[in-house]
Amino acid sequence: MKMALAQFNPIVGDLPGNAHRTVEWAREAHAQGAELVVFPELSVVGYSPHDLLDNSRFIDAVEAAIEHIHRHIPEGLGVIIGAPVRNPDPIGKKLLNAAVLLERGLPPRITAKMLLPTYDVYDEYRYFEPGTHQDVIEFRGLRLGVHICEDMWNLAEYATYHMYDRNPVEELIEQGVDILINLSASPYAHDRHDVRSGIIETLCRRHGKPFLMVNQVGANTELIFDGDSRVHGADGRMLACAPSFEEALVMWDSDTGEPCTPPRRDRIDDLHDALVLGIREYVDKTAAFDQVVIGLSGGIDSAVTAALAVEALGARRVTGITMPSVYSSEGSIHDSEVLARNLGIAFHELPIRDVVDAFSRTLQPLFDGTTKGVAEENIQARTRGVLLMAYANKYSRMVLTTGNKSEMAMGYATLYGDMSGGLAVLADVFKTDVYALARRINERAGMARIPLSSIEKPPSAELRPDQKDEDSLPPYPVLDDILRRYIEERKDEEVIAAETGHALAFVRSILDTVDRNEYKRKQAPPGLRVSVKGFGSGRRMPIVARVNRRDIDQMMNELTQEARA
Amino acid sequence: MKMALAQFNPIVGDLPGNAHRTVEWAREAHAQGAELVVFPELSVVGYSPHDLLDNSRFIDAVEAAIEHIHRHIPEGLGVIIGAPVRNPDPIGKKLLNAAVLLERGLPPRITAKMLLPTYDVYDEYRYFEPGTHQDVIEFRGLRLGVHICEDMWNLAEYATYHMYDRNPVEELIEQGVDILINLSASPYAHDRHDVRSGIIETLCRRHGKPFLMVNQVGANTELIFDGDSRVHGADGRMLACAPSFEEALVMWDSDTGEPCTPPRRDRIDDLHDALVLGIREYVDKTAAFDQVVIGLSGGIDSAVTAALAVEALGARRVTGITMPSVYSSEGSIHDSEVLARNLGIAFHELPIRDVVDAFSRTLQPLFDGTTKGVAEENIQARTRGVLLMAYANKYSRMVLTTGNKSEMAMGYATLYGDMSGGLAVLADVFKTDVYALARRINERAGMARIPLSSIEKPPSAELRPDQKDEDSLPPYPVLDDILRRYIEERKDEEVIAAETGHALAFVRSILDTVDRNEYKRKQAPPGLRVSVKGFGSGRRMPIVARVNRRDIDQMMNELTQEARA
Repeated sequence: MKMALAQFNPIVGDLPGNAHRTVEWAREAHAQGAELVVFPELSVVGYSPHDLLDNSRFIDAVEAAIEHIHRHIPEGLGVIIGAPVRNPDPIGKKLLNAAVLLERGLPPRITAKMLLPTYDVYDEYRYFEPGTHQDVIEFRGLRLGVHICEDMWNLAEYATYHMYDRNPVEELIEQGVDILINLSASPYAHDRHDVRSGIIETLCRRHGKPFLMVNQVGANTELIFDGDSRVHGADGRMLACAPSFEEALVMWDSDTGEPCTPPRRDRIDDLHDALVLGIREYVDKTAAFDQVVIGLSGGIDSAVTAALAVEALGARRVTGITMPSVYSSEGSIHDSEVLARNLGIAFHELPIRDVVDAFSRTLQPLFDGTTKGVAEENIQARTRGVLLMAYANKYSRMVLTTGNKSEMAMGYATLYGDMSGGLAVLADVFKTDVYALARRINERAGMARIPLSSIEKPPSAELRPDQKDEDSLPPYPVLDDILRRYIEERKDEEVIAAETGHALAFVRSILDTVDRNEYKRKQAPPGLRVSVKGFGSGRRMPIVARVNRRDIDQMMNELTQEARA
Repeated sequence: MKMALAQFNPIVGDLPGNAHRTVEWAREAHAQGAELVVFPELSVVGYSPHDLLDNSRFIDAVEAAIEHIHRHIPEGLGVIIGAPVRNPDPIGKKLLNAAVLLERGLPPRITAKMLLPTYDVYDEYRYFEPGTHQDVIEFRGLRLGVHICEDMWNLAEYATYHMYDRNPVEELIEQGVDILINLSASPYAHDRHDVRSGIIETLCRRHGKPFLMVNQVGANTELIFDGDSRVHGADGRMLACAPSFEEALVMWDSDTGEPCTPPRRDRIDDLHDALVLGIREYVDKTAAFDQVVIGLSGGIDSAVTAALAVEALGARRVTGITMPSVYSSEGSIHDSEVLARNLGIAFHELPIRDVVDAFSRTLQPLFDGTTKGVAEENIQARTRGVLLMAYANKYSRMVLTTGNKSEMAMGYATLYGDMSGGLAVLADVFKTDVYALARRINERAGMARIPLSSIEKPPSAELRPDQKDEDSLPPYPVLDDILRRYIEERKDEEVIAAETGHALAFVRSILDTVDRNEYKRKQAPPGLRVSVKGFGSGRRMPIVARVNRRDIDQMMNELTQEARA
């Protein structure tokens, strides 16, 4: 049977638009000879619609969208879409996260997701009741084992948070299936392609059945979906695959399939493409602004952000503004100019000295006799924030912020200053990876698109004379290594100290600094998530809290001593 | 038997501190003759510890804290505490949300919460596996029906989100209990006292058993816990009650209990006390700053915020700064001065004209020939934000923001301007209630502590000549009525139009404005939650989304027409 994988990019909440495009894609699949086309998880509403699902009229509209699709798909085609449907049971959550098989003239056939991820960025049990059983769907002589995303992830070797007490894939297999079909909304992170391959190959080999997986593509606020849809044969070999980071309708014939080898992907290339997609989607889907503006400091973060923005939107839609102060080096201004010229973007210079002086005069009655410090440094960063936002407000642009994950972790950024903007492009990219991105951008361009001096000079906020990041922070390779273990691998001080060989007190001081800056991240713009644990909705730490690792140590030591006594 | 209700205020994450204070309270209860003392839900860690629970070392430390308590409580006393405990089953979430009965020399007895709220501000299924059963705890001849918070809320007449398929209270009753004991972490909202009374009275009468409920008190970031702990007799009458909004150790003798009548509470008094507690707790528990600073505009929002801050912290810890512009009326500056004098707080004036002029000069090359508008208005608001933050940074103060819920809803506020600060005091208080608070503050003071002109003049942002809020917004009584139905009652345009009699297009325009401003609220400081649905962690709306109510209407109408055809 000819099947189509619809690696589809819905817009969250745009029910009429998503429904119309679903019909178009179904017609195209039919025209190409498909008997069955499979869309991703929640394809009608986008992932995730969040609390839109709490609105009963929105659910009425979802039902209308499904009915619209049902009426307009071609005769002779089976269409599996993903949608929230009302839970027929009055007890439990009001919705099911469902796969719906639509055929003209036949009632919809519904399968509910059984395993609802409720950790990291996922809040599914907030909205959905788990399905209580899986029924094989008979479709033209084929027994389809339809299930949804997390339903396939319950393997001990891949569980990061916990195992579930049900195994939907095995429950389907026990009923006898000819093919497993998974609808996903599985966001990108460095390792996802390989993890998905590992899981699907394991399941194919264990059960001796082919496996078809269709994932969303596109981005919604912080989440980037890479697609990566594919079919594996009963022996685990990949038989069809969609390109990453773009929409695609991929045909696969279950009777004739040839092996398919996806192009080998490099981590930094993937990261690059994910960020480019994330920027483009944020700007185009919100449709509030056509263009973006970026403060160019001459440093590497703003240079990489600008280069990615140009990839995403084209040079015409990007403006760079340099805002030198008395502490800015000549080199910094020059590097910004060269970068803007290399990228072909509009470029302006707005010196901040006049405004900073006016702030000093205004505050003089209150600041007289005090020593210059963080207050004065922040005034500079905030003056830049106000200038960028003024330009953005005047000319309907969105500001992209440029802070990286290392800075966000350590609070090495100014609220309402360099943190002002609509989207934080690098918020989930450690500084060491920002360097790798810069080098890759230049390699791809075959030239120093990002000036080498921006890459090679020691990083500096340039908020006081001769300031260097390393005055305040450990060297980035050391810092990033510790931060990755703490944030992404969720390890604590003792384990990290043991693994890295750093002193416990040093590791503790870094972890304490991360914790203490939660209040800053609370007010940060959304950031593009490219790791398994970004700041943002996937990491929910209390702001008002007192975790004193020293006191905790002492309590634990006292107990040990009491136990000995 | 003499029992003690420990209406306790833990600090989130402060395991050593919470453990030590638990022991102190237990000793005090014992000294007063109690045989059993009951602490609130998650009393050892505070509610909610959020993703601290994902850290395995933190859970080790919780175990140490429980052991510390166990070893140090007095002989002869039973102590029921609330704590996360490790799930002994390797399948499922790694923790249980447990009540733990500790007695010296006996093993702990553990009961796990069965109903895990996962809606609004609650994320319990993110961390906890539901308990599978409830066992009655035998304690000195009494059969205790111990259960936790949501476990008592599964009554159809009180369910707002959904019903559960288990009923822990009935399962306990079936086993035969002498008293129901509920450990809660139930945050304040206008109607909570009456709702709790309604539920407990219903359960007492239905089952003919007394009911003891102990709730947390205090505040953690946005959540304010009012306490409201009590005992009801088998006939439903209240037999003991703790004061609201403060810690208390309340004794109750099951053999002699006399009826107790809690003082009648007024909605605005409660709101006042909740906000005062919320401010005090945020400042004192973060312990990052001893003092706060507030921008005083002469308007009612900043006046009420300052008055509440003085109630919370004392006049010595509050500073007011007025930042007049060329558009500020003489009256506004005067009202700010009078307010500061009435409150006895430090007061400074920082005119913004010089800085605003410097911004104009700096931007002149880019703004030349454009019409003044939102960009220029925002520069004024942001100049004030920078000045306040500069003062706060210099003198280690925290800025309190003053925007109300009506403004937050409509985006009638400037990001990085008046939205700059650590805590948004009135973010969950509609403007109409801000007026009620102002009047109540003056009644309580027996004088016009808040100048009458601040209350009586038409609200204005004073960012351009003769600007009034009503130029941009409907009158607040009309607006708030619509917003309350949309946000708190989660109704949509058709229902609201029908209920209020307003035109559908008018209601739609307001709802669309609320939706469109999600990006601003994403970057707002945390706000004190005082309603059943505040902005913040309880309302999770997508930012990149396209909900076009007109298109949805059209799709639904087309379907109806097709169905007729």
